[in-house]
Amino acid sequence: MKRFVDLADLDREGVLDLLDLAARLEHHPEPQALLGRILGLVFFNPSLRTLSSFQAGMARLGGSSFVITPGQGTWQLESRLGAVMDGDRAEHVREGIPVLASYCDVLGIRSFAEGKNLAIDLAEVQFHEMARLVDKPLINLESAMNHPCQALADWKTMDELRVPRSGKFVLSWVKHPRALPLAVPAATLHMAAMRGMEVVVLRPDGFALPEQVMAKARAAAAASGGSVRETDNRDEAMTGAQVLYAKEWGSTRHYGDAAGDAALRAQLGDWMVQEPWFAKAQQTCKVMHCLPVRRNVAIADHVLDGPRSVVLREAHNRMPAQMAVLHRLLKQ
Amino acid sequence: MKRFVDLADLDREGVLDLLDLAARLEHHPEPQALLGRILGLVFFNPSLRTLSSFQAGMARLGGSSFVITPGQGTWQLESRLGAVMDGDRAEHVREGIPVLASYCDVLGIRSFAEGKNLAIDLAEVQFHEMARLVDKPLINLESAMNHPCQALADWKTMDELRVPRSGKFVLSWVKHPRALPLAVPAATLHMAAMRGMEVVVLRPDGFALPEQVMAKARAAAAASGGSVRETDNRDEAMTGAQVLYAKEWGSTRHYGDAAGDAALRAQLGDWMVQEPWFAKAQQTCKVMHCLPVRRNVAIADHVLDGPRSVVLREAHNRMPAQMAVLHRLLKQ
Amino acid sequence: MKRFVDLADLDREGVLDLLDLAARLEHHPEPQALLGRILGLVFFNPSLRTLSSFQAGMARLGGSSFVITPGQGTWQLESRLGAVMDGDRAEHVREGIPVLASYCDVLGIRSFAEGKNLAIDLAEVQFHEMARLVDKPLINLESAMNHPCQALADWKTMDELRVPRSGKFVLSWVKHPRALPLAVPAATLHMAAMRGMEVVVLRPDGFALPEQVMAKARAAAAASGGSVRETDNRDEAMTGAQVLYAKEWGSTRHYGDAAGDAALRAQLGDWMVQEPWFAKAQQTCKVMHCLPVRRNVAIADHVLDGPRSVVLREAHNRMPAQMAVLHRLLKQ
Repeated sequence: MKRFVDLADLDREGVLDLLDLAARLEHHPEPQALLGRILGLVFFNPSLRTLSSFQAGMARLGGSSFVITPGQGTWQLESRLGAVMDGDRAEHVREGIPVLASYCDVLGIRSFAEGKNLAIDLAEVQFHEMARLVDKPLINLESAMNHPCQALADWKTMDELRVPRSGKFVLSWVKHPRALPLAVPAATLHMAAMRGMEVVVLRPDGFALPEQVMAKARAAAAASGGSVRETDNRDEAMTGAQVLYAKEWGSTRHYGDAAGDAALRAQLGDWMVQEPWFAKAQQTCKVMHCLPVRRNVAIADHVLDGPRSVVLREAHNRMPAQMAVLHRLLKQ
Repeated sequence: MKRFVDLADLDREGVLDLLDLAARLEHHPEPQALLGRILGLVFFNPSLRTLSSFQAGMARLGGSSFVITPGQGTWQLESRLGAVMDGDRAEHVREGIPVLASYCDVLGIRSFAEGKNLAIDLAEVQFHEMARLVDKPLINLESAMNHPCQALADWKTMDELRVPRSGKFVLSWVKHPRALPLAVPAATLHMAAMRGMEVVVLRPDGFALPEQVMAKARAAAAASGGSVRETDNRDEAMTGAQVLYAKEWGSTRHYGDAAGDAALRAQLGDWMVQEPWFAKAQQTCKVMHCLPVRRNVAIADHVLDGPRSVVLREAHNRMPAQMAVLHRLLKQ
Repeated sequence: MKRFVDLADLDREGVLDLLDLAARLEHHPEPQALLGRILGLVFFNPSLRTLSSFQAGMARLGGSSFVITPGQGTWQLESRLGAVMDGDRAEHVREGIPVLASYCDVLGIRSFAEGKNLAIDLAEVQFHEMARLVDKPLINLESAMNHPCQALADWKTMDELRVPRSGKFVLSWVKHPRALPLAVPAATLHMAAMRGMEVVVLRPDGFALPEQVMAKARAAAAASGGSVRETDNRDEAMTGAQVLYAKEWGSTRHYGDAAGDAALRAQLGDWMVQEPWFAKAQQTCKVMHCLPVRRNVAIADHVLDGPRSVVLREAHNRMPAQMAVLHRLLKQ
């Protein structure tokens, strides 16, 4: 493995191998495995779990990290090709990224969607532009349309909870004060399909996932024996569900149009997860969320604090999952 | 020892044991003691000494640290129970804190007083709320009413300087442009009382320490053979003093009332430590301060730069004192 | 070696020794050399390369780092002597710097020129004031008039590229939206002179380097067999050049006068490096720059992306050069 930028770059066996390695490192620590090796972390966007779990995981393997946050202790980076750089961005990614890569053994980059043009974000223009500049192992810390570290941790969490490979997995849109990127819904949908699950995307009108995202998930389902469909009927979606994965995202009908998105959103007050949602689900149906979560907006307190919630376990699993990625990239 | 959140959780022997360990680690380094162990540091408020001395101390023991600063590279964290999170705080401490705890072996949290409601700050509502969410060893990096790391370092400093156990210790209010929290005065007062000293709190009218703080210190004094009293008479307080501990804090009469506090404060221009303060003190009387200190507002240059000042030694002692805490928490 | 604050503190043999050590550490890593040793990094100004390459280099030698950025997670530091600190700066460097030094084994400080008064900046008042407070090995991470880490890395880069010791080295002023400090031009000029090169400073009228800077370089040239002169004639300067070192700096005629500087600058649109500049240079003439560089303002894309540019190699060489400095300071 030379890069970890998309779970789809692996086949199902490759993911299962990584999860075996994650479990092994959890139970048989290797505190010297990456001695003297360096992880560079570049955050164009805020982070809590990724920032801390990567540093902690790298250190547990004996390695070290440095963190660069453009705009905070480091100047803003320009990314437009051919830009005449007479504004406030002092350095171009064409210098900044290869320089940082040259100091480390593996580089992680977080770069969210711009949220203006769906085609550009779907093409991962910004992340791929930077990825092309890196001649070292590379990790996607969340790009415009992907979050493979989260997907890997979520798969691990379901395995630990013995959610059946073919179980019913509902990815539901939930409320948020404003439009959020499609990275986690796209990565989650694909991950559940690749795991072989019966996947239902539950979302209100105007929030359908892009056809390109759906098609990628359907292809993964076809290979794994799973299925993928979408609906706006909560009752039907939740019937027999074994996992409800709640996630906020922006309107795809009004992509990049904050006013249009807000108008749709204003009418969707009941898209906050509450206990009655689970009336027809399996009794043990779990609630998953990648965090951060807006309490009492996306998910009610009583659900997050109740027995269905496994959000802390998902977050914890970021660390061993990422330790497996680091180990595989650097010790292959 | 499972937590280090209040010096009062230890008895006198417990503190002396920690100080012995600090001295041992200073003179016989153990650079592999905490290999592969992780310290998480969460700063809701700014820091210089705590931020650097904990990272340096952890590394000197072979361990590693990560730092999370909500609002800076990480979103702001909500702490109100039951909040409908539709504002600018993207994550609740009920998720954020346990997640961070799950990545590390010991977690440190800094969370200053809100400074609005004295009863709430005295009850340490915010810190205890977070502490309840942590199932790992926990260190108080300064809470609303406590700063046990500073207190431990100050005790060590007095021992090194051979300040007698029963020596006269004056904790004096000094000038500052605005109201500051009660954490250090409360922790210092209790520490000196627990050490067995003759403690005098010297403060102007309107700045008496809360009865709850005084009572805790009196109880510690009773157990150690020391004493605690308060006065606004500088002459009487300083007579025979062996230590002057200068500290700024807000008016307790006008707690949470900036205008009332400022009106009192405006009349207290001579509460800046200068050499004449020491006319009746012991000749070797030392000046202590936890830093940061406002030069020529709280303490005059000639005192800080003169032979009485031991403020740099106190600051340095943060590191070995905290190394002892880390060692005790993780190697017990 | 007790400090690394100016390349001029070493003789030519001393620099060559450091470069030998850098090459040795590159090819024969010593991942345990600085086990348990701590590097403190204080940044009064932004950084990308220095911040990451020092942390990475220290970790590759087995050591650890902490980073302090006044004004970001740490309060602003006051540096004026005798200040009455009733403003927004909570701590004085007279406490902050020695305290940080007391936690680490080697301290690095970055403190740019104020850019108001040339005599004060030339005297390095601010850096020397802080340096006097440090009783540990000290590294200059860029001061008002110096950047020895960059100079050392650039020397290494020219050696690797087999640029002859006596080759023609043109340090050329290039365009930037505003006045930048003289630190890199001064350090670069001195480094090339000390290396024994034929050095030409090419700059427009109003941008001559201060006489003190020129004199220091001439002295270095005299000792090494090199030469130093200046011109505003690009054609003459570039004839036979083996290296073009492009750098932005502020008008010395209008030092501290932004309007005067801007008026001069507005007429200098053709001071952007483009391929025609090299018509009379040696065919293999290299382009160097310390980064960050404004693309299409200081240097055109086609030059930065073409075969002349060695800017990424210079940046990479910061790490091994600094590893040699750390090793020499701590393992002597």
